[in-house]
Amino acid sequence: MFPRTLIKEFQSILGKENVFANEADLVTYSYDAAVLDPVVPGVVLRSQTGEALGKVVKLCNENGIPLTVRGTGTNLSGGTIPLPEGAVVLTNGMNRILEINEQDMYAVVQPGVITAKLAGSVEAKGLFYPPDPGSQTVSTLGGNVAENAGGLRGLKYGVTRDYVMGLQFFDVNGDLVKTGSRTVKCATGYNLTGLMVGSEGTLGVFNEIILKLIPLPASQKAMVAVFNEMDRASETVAAIIASHIVPATLEFMDNFTIRAVEDFSHVGLPTDAAALLLVEVDGHPVQVDEEAQKVKDICRKMGATSIRVAKDAEERDKVWEARRSALSALAKLKPTLVLEDATVPRSKIPEMVRAIQDIAKEYDISIGTFGHAGDGNLHPTILTDRRNEKEWERVESAIAAIFDKALGLGGTLSGEHGTGIAKSCFLEKETGRATIVYSQRIKAALDPNNILNPGKIIGTGPV
Amino acid sequence: MFPRTLIKEFQSILGKENVFANEADLVTYSYDAAVLDPVVPGVVLRSQTGEALGKVVKLCNENGIPLTVRGTGTNLSGGTIPLPEGAVVLTNGMNRILEINEQDMYAVVQPGVITAKLAGSVEAKGLFYPPDPGSQTVSTLGGNVAENAGGLRGLKYGVTRDYVMGLQFFDVNGDLVKTGSRTVKCATGYNLTGLMVGSEGTLGVFNEIILKLIPLPASQKAMVAVFNEMDRASETVAAIIASHIVPATLEFMDNFTIRAVEDFSHVGLPTDAAALLLVEVDGHPVQVDEEAQKVKDICRKMGATSIRVAKDAEERDKVWEARRSALSALAKLKPTLVLEDATVPRSKIPEMVRAIQDIAKEYDISIGTFGHAGDGNLHPTILTDRRNEKEWERVESAIAAIFDKALGLGGTLSGEHGTGIAKSCFLEKETGRATIVYSQRIKAALDPNNILNPGKIIGTGPV
Repeated sequence: MFPRTLIKEFQSILGKENVFANEADLVTYSYDAAVLDPVVPGVVLRSQTGEALGKVVKLCNENGIPLTVRGTGTNLSGGTIPLPEGAVVLTNGMNRILEINEQDMYAVVQPGVITAKLAGSVEAKGLFYPPDPGSQTVSTLGGNVAENAGGLRGLKYGVTRDYVMGLQFFDVNGDLVKTGSRTVKCATGYNLTGLMVGSEGTLGVFNEIILKLIPLPASQKAMVAVFNEMDRASETVAAIIASHIVPATLEFMDNFTIRAVEDFSHVGLPTDAAALLLVEVDGHPVQVDEEAQKVKDICRKMGATSIRVAKDAEERDKVWEARRSALSALAKLKPTLVLEDATVPRSKIPEMVRAIQDIAKEYDISIGTFGHAGDGNLHPTILTDRRNEKEWERVESAIAAIFDKALGLGGTLSGEHGTGIAKSCFLEKETGRATIVYSQRIKAALDPNNILNPGKIIGTGPV
Repeated sequence: MFPRTLIKEFQSILGKENVFANEADLVTYSYDAAVLDPVVPGVVLRSQTGEALGKVVKLCNENGIPLTVRGTGTNLSGGTIPLPEGAVVLTNGMNRILEINEQDMYAVVQPGVITAKLAGSVEAKGLFYPPDPGSQTVSTLGGNVAENAGGLRGLKYGVTRDYVMGLQFFDVNGDLVKTGSRTVKCATGYNLTGLMVGSEGTLGVFNEIILKLIPLPASQKAMVAVFNEMDRASETVAAIIASHIVPATLEFMDNFTIRAVEDFSHVGLPTDAAALLLVEVDGHPVQVDEEAQKVKDICRKMGATSIRVAKDAEERDKVWEARRSALSALAKLKPTLVLEDATVPRSKIPEMVRAIQDIAKEYDISIGTFGHAGDGNLHPTILTDRRNEKEWERVESAIAAIFDKALGLGGTLSGEHGTGIAKSCFLEKETGRATIVYSQRIKAALDPNNILNPGKIIGTGPV
């Protein structure tokens, strides 16, 4: 039972209407989008102001209450799973866009702003916020920054990290730290902005975020290329990149995923295709036409059986709607879906796709593969039933095999989903021990009572 | 006198030929490009391998020897000024480009590689490493990363930080920390890469650097616009940015600088102009033509008295050669040159330019102003003689006034030169106390004996 006296203190800071401690509320916030055991927190808090947020952090620290900040819980690595008897701090009370500066091309937002809301608001002003994680219609910018979220456009435009110009965040004592600037260049002080991006709530609690905007590209062209051999599709990805065309998006979908998506969204995908590539180029209209033609030529040369260019915005939207529905479509097929995001250098995509197929066979499990092939960031998606213990053991072995393969190809455990709880035990394989010790030293210095989302990224080991 | 026993230990690690302790050598490495008092180190070391480098770091830590890594000392904030009786570690023995991967578009380099050497090597393969600090022909990539160096192309292409995909560095115990990846997306572990960029040698010693490359733009067009009022030129900068054109470079030069440059380089600059804008657009040829035309139209509308487009590569090179000679040209005029880089949001450039003029008048000193106007990063350059104590006092007051103005306009102390020793005492003005305390906690945890380039960025205050 969470201490009554602390509940009262939180109520006096936040108002009674923003402190939740009944069982239904607590259970609601016991899990996120990762396949991990739920953990029921002791209290759920919602702050409406930065000032109150700072006080909450301080109070948690003084009382040793583990604190997990949560946007909308779309996290795929367990980063928003709380601690037993810990506090969950919701950011949905701090969801204002504070400034969109058209002249200087930046926005200042509170952490609870929904990603797509900002993207839409700046687009209306002829500006562009490129990071587009799959969950963008529900995910929050605070969550995106905490997880260094990626998306479909990473290939050309980079990920969330590349758009965070500055931050205000509360340290564990509730003091406000300011880092970065509203200027595009800033070499003042340590790059704490860089450190905070992707730190999964373990080093501080965001109050305000300054995001870089760029001019909206003048035109786009989307196309779907159909392949009757999976290798041909994945080799085409490498061939496009090697030609030094950088598409805005370059997505891959295997037959398993195509069938699931078509069944779910009925957009007319060819269900007998071995694989599809979904490509979009953007920029100046003439450049777009030329690059689209070059991509078509490469696809044809590499053996695509058909290539369809979206004839208008509506058809283009349909292509991306289909792609964006992949996860939901696959999720319907089996009780449990494990979405991985091990990432390899782009030229290794053909080898990685083959390896995933071999691993599916070896461990006798279903894996649908789709994802951001253009930046080497595939999403092998395992469909299973976690209650089936025998199969679950094979799933866990398959995941480890996927990680080993990605690392063997010079890749990384996570391209965009973060380390969280799900991958912290694999971290040493990639980085070696010294990196973890170095990271733990930082964590211990900045959060001596270990209350800021403990256990995430670097695990719970001693310093 | 540096302990003989330690000299012997360094010699056994590095070889006698890589340990320097005679007075001439020590004095050579007592200063860098910043206007600060020289500090003579106790020993100068050169490592040829990563393995030896790690051992040197460990030995320094065990013996409490302050260690300052030095590339070519082009630093403008005192980041490479050593400590009395400290060690200077040169990186010129580790100057190999280890890999240029054309398919996956990255390079792996040792820290001592000269910036322009990498840029030229990748350009020969149709690739582009955009960061181009003024000192690029002599500066090292290790130094660029340690200082988060900027350059002329920051506006469109970002700064060094935006190109560092991963790092290997030695922690203070000589253990090798690996962070980041050869993949364009990486969300594994803490973003230690982000933290290390701009940390000025205070948190670790680089061994290898993974840098992102992009395709080389297909075409460029450079032009020079002449203005007979300075305000008109600076307002044109804001007008170009507001039109959502993002030139590759957008440089400003006041009359003082124009005259100095022309006197130095004889390229035919109009010495009676109040100010010049030097603009380059790049990308697809059609887009380049259109953007060049738009820039010309804006310049004309804003009152440019003439606009000259470089007719070929040779003329274009001449424009940038002139711009790049600005610092050397100004440096010839007086015994002491102080190059500042306070930076403001781009729309504030007109106000900042006016303020710098007012400050020059108020404190009765000579300031030439040029720099990266397009990203708000001006270089007010004070010409003085440090031996003139009275004037030097006014110079110091003027610098403080420039910082105050930049901060008042929502800007930052340093756009690209770093904090070093020169600006550490001003840091609190920009960030507040909590940011410094937070930074000091990180430093103390990672370098408990305070031997890694102590005193830089966050000063020497207690935690």
